[in-house]
Formats: sequence, C-alpha cells, structure tokens
Amino acid sequence: MLNVERLCVKKDGEFEVLHECTSAKNAGVKKQERALYEQRTQQNLQKLAVMQEKLYADGKEGVVVILQAMDAAGKDSAVKHVIGALNPQGVDIVSFKQPTKEELAHDYLWRAVRALPTRGKIAIFNRSYYEDVLVVQVHHLEKTYRMAERCIDDDFFEKRYRQIVDFERYLYENSYRVVKIFLNVSKERQKERFLERIDDPAKNWKFSQADLKERAHFESYQKVYRDVIDATAKRDTPWYVVPADQKWLARYCISEILVNTMNEINPEFPELSDEEKAGLAQCRTLLTADSQEEKEKNKK
Amino acid sequence: MLNVERLCVKKDGEFEVLHECTSAKNAGVKKQERALYEQRTQQNLQKLAVMQEKLYADGKEGVVVILQAMDAAGKDSAVKHVIGALNPQGVDIVSFKQPTKEELAHDYLWRAVRALPTRGKIAIFNRSYYEDVLVVQVHHLEKTYRMAERCIDDDFFEKRYRQIVDFERYLYENSYRVVKIFLNVSKERQKERFLERIDDPAKNWKFSQADLKERAHFESYQKVYRDVIDATAKRDTPWYVVPADQKWLARYCISEILVNTMNEINPEFPELSDEEKAGLAQCRTLLTADSQEEKEKNKK
Repeated sequence: MLNVERLCVKKDGEFEVLHECTSAKNAGVKKQERALYEQRTQQNLQKLAVMQEKLYADGKEGVVVILQAMDAAGKDSAVKHVIGALNPQGVDIVSFKQPTKEELAHDYLWRAVRALPTRGKIAIFNRSYYEDVLVVQVHHLEKTYRMAERCIDDDFFEKRYRQIVDFERYLYENSYRVVKIFLNVSKERQKERFLERIDDPAKNWKFSQADLKERAHFESYQKVYRDVIDATAKRDTPWYVVPADQKWLARYCISEILVNTMNEINPEFPELSDEEKAGLAQCRTLLTADSQEEKEKNKK
Repeated sequence: MLNVERLCVKKDGEFEVLHECTSAKNAGVKKQERALYEQRTQQNLQKLAVMQEKLYADGKEGVVVILQAMDAAGKDSAVKHVIGALNPQGVDIVSFKQPTKEELAHDYLWRAVRALPTRGKIAIFNRSYYEDVLVVQVHHLEKTYRMAERCIDDDFFEKRYRQIVDFERYLYENSYRVVKIFLNVSKERQKERFLERIDDPAKNWKFSQADLKERAHFESYQKVYRDVIDATAKRDTPWYVVPADQKWLARYCISEILVNTMNEINPEFPELSDEEKAGLAQCRTLLTADSQEEKEKNKK
C-alpha cells in the first residue's frame, strides 16, 4: 500500500516528494485496490478513536491539522468522513473564511492563535494562516493593508514564511503537533467537480461564480503552493502533499497521517500516584457502602 | 532632565544601561527638580492625548506597553496616573494574573495574543508572558507542567527567550510597537511600601502574606530579570529599565518613553482621496439643505 511518508516534505534530505502527484495513478496505486484502501481507512479510524481518548485523558499534547487545497479538492468531505469518526468532544473544527474587519486590524496569526485547541484536543483548520501567503500573494492583497509602510516591502512574503516557521516551531516546542496537509487536486478533476456542483441541485450551494475566477489563477496558485511548502516544511512540522483526485485515496492518506502522528505522540492514560490510587480505592468503598444502604432502604 | 534613552536596553552597542538604577539619586536627578519633572510629565500627557487620537484615526500601528516589576514598584499607580490621561476608548488595560486552568492547557503566549489590541489602539499589559520566564524560572514551575517530555529540558528558558524574541519581532513586522518597561524598585523602598500597605487600612487590600514570600526571592528575581532583559532586548523591541523608587520620576520616564514611541510612529489623520473629499462636500451640501428645510418648517 502507499506509504504516506513518501508524500511527506520535511527538508531533511530524507524524503521523496510526489509534488506532481494528484491521482492514484501518479502515486502508483491501482484503482482495483480501492476496496483494500477503504478497509484500511476504516481500521485507521478505529485506531484513531482509541488513541484520541488517550490523548484527551493525557492532556499533554495538542494537535493542529491544517488542511489546505484548491477549491473542490475535497477538504470538506475529508473533514466529514475522516474527522467525523472521532469523538467530537475532543475535536475543534475551525474554518477560516475571508478575514473580518476585526481580524484584518490584527496581525494575521491572531485568529489562528485564538482558535488553538487546549492540549489533549485535536483542531482541524479548514484553511488557515497559510491563506495569508497564498491568496494574499496571488492577488497582491498586501498592497491594500492598513499597516505602517515599513511593514510592506519586497520581502513581505519571505518574512511571512520565516514568521510561520518560527510560529510552528514555537508550537512544537510548547507541546503541540502541527500537521500540514495539502490536498493536491488536478485542474481537470477540479473542472469535473465544479460541473457536478453546477448540475446537481443538492450541490449548487457549494458553487459560486467567484470559484471560476479563482480557477483562472490555478497555475499561479500551484507555483505559490510549491514555494510556500518548500519554505515552511520542517522535520518537526512537515507538509504532506496528498493526491486528491480520488477521495478514497485522499481519505486513506489523511487517516494514515493521523495514525502516524498519534503513534509519535504515543499518548497513555495518566498513571495515578499511590496516593491517588488510595483515594480511588476509598471512593470504591464509599460507593459500595452506599449501594448496600440503598438495598437496605429498598427492603423496607 | 533625564534622557530616557539612557535607560534603554537595545543590544546594538549604542546604549548606556542604568541597571543598578532604582532611584532619582542613582539616575543623577536632584529631588529639588521634582516640580519640574511633574510639569514635564503633564505636558507629555497632553501631547500623548493628541497623538493617541491620530493613532486611532490612522489605525496603522498598534502599541503594546509591557509593565513588569517586583511587587510595590508602582505598576498600578503608573497605569492610573499615566495611562489614565489617555482616551480610554483607545486603550486596553490587561492584567495578567496567575494563569487559569484553561490558560495553562495552552501555549504560554496564547492569552497574550488573545489580548492584542487592534491596530490604532494601545494595550497596557500589567505583567505579561514575561512572567513565564520570571516567576516560572524562580520557582521552577515548569517541572509541574503537563507537557510532552521533549518540551521540558535544560534549554527550557533559553528556548523561551528565543520564542519571545521571535514573537516580538513578528509583532513589530506586523505593524505593532512593543515597548517593555521594567520598573526597578529597590529592596529598601519595597519594604517601606509594604509597611504602608500593612499600616494604612485603605491599602491593606493590596497586601498579602504571599508578598513576603516573594520578597524572600528578591535577589533571585533581580538576577533573572537581568538575564531576561539581556536576552530579549532588541533594537526594535527594546527594554527600558526605569528607576521606580520615586513615583514622580517613574511617571515622568514612562510618559517620555510613550511620547518617544509615538514620535517614532508619527501617526497622522488619514488623508482623504479626491473622491472621498468630493463625497464629504456632497454631505455638507445635503446637511445644509436639510437645516434650511428645518428653518422653513419652524417658520410655519
């Protein structure tokens, strides 16, 4: 089966990026294997449910999963089908839309920091501060920002890359895992999915004419994505470039990446001290006595 | 008069730190000059009020003023008498107390980021994330933290220094000014102020027995403060070490530092485009016509 480590960009010389890889075929996966992949995805989701409970009970590490992609790459459906299998109590789903006025009046990481999960939880960022080096860069939005002149110069995006690397290292050093996933869809497959959204009344709401305008910049986005991933992939905060033309394959990849991340964290139920164990034993005695009393009462 | 640039720690070779400087005498200021200093402070506060309005209207830069000090150094009174002169609409005062459970379950900068002002505003941090390298370091609190083992190692505070430097540079690059003020009180003067708090019923509420316990660590704190200031003072995000034994001198210094910061920002009322000016002119015409109508009505 496809080893997702082959999709991992880490910048430490030991990786094999499948940058051009959008489909099962590119990734060397046969379509006849689909059932096998789907089965494995289900197994992964079961494993994840168990590990998530330990993560929550342990409360030592937080997980931030960043999903980035072109439109119609399957972000929403990945959230629904992969993340939907987890216990929602331990998961924060955060969608980053066009920034509000209040968000624009702050530094660009502000809204992401506010949305950071407590340790023990998993946050899914559906889009993220990466938009601030993606859409902003493609459309030169920084020129419209109300900021001191000293801040908007030729190194604007280079500085943001460095700031993002610093920020994610900071998170890693403060007991978070940052997992970045780029769902890599082909332009052809995007077209097919757009046509579905136009033709199927149940999908119309997902489509807007603005999507076509963005599609006209597909190549610019691809180039900027590559720059961004190159600049911000680090050993401890890697990027995964996931082929997204087949949803079953993308879901398998995401589930594998999450299982691997959880294995690295290796959460355990907290070990109680002798004192705490004694406390529990005492509570057991009290509860048992309590139920004896209840029985006596019921007899009368 | 005392030039506050002499109190500035910038790490670029062009400063003269008055590290041991807690009093007017140490700073070379004569007590007979008090009235002069108080007058200058009042002038500064008037200047600040004007500049603050421009900062707010301009909305291009935010200001974060960090106040750190030992107990009874005069943080609260500085906020009351210096910051109190500003328009409260443009000021956020944020006191960082002992972290809550929710705060401890996040990275330590989380609560500070949440409290960042929108650009155009001034935030006063009464204590700050610097507590996470001060009290935490003096009392080894990091050993009690629920974090992955990899995070709590011998470089724990060195890493935090670097993280703080990165964070403040990020803020500077994103159109914020970070001004850090250490109110440097002598151990002797702290004792006098504690005695006042014990003896004066109107000040009793300010004193707690825990304050004496902290006082026992006075020298440790002084050492750690020096390390922290050395490690985190940068040209664009400097520290000011302000003599705090005389409140009138400390207030003068703070007001000077703020005026200098505002001068660097040099905020201006936003310049309107020709289109916007035309719009205003039109509104003027409408309003004037309106009042003519009112007059006609009143005549009838």
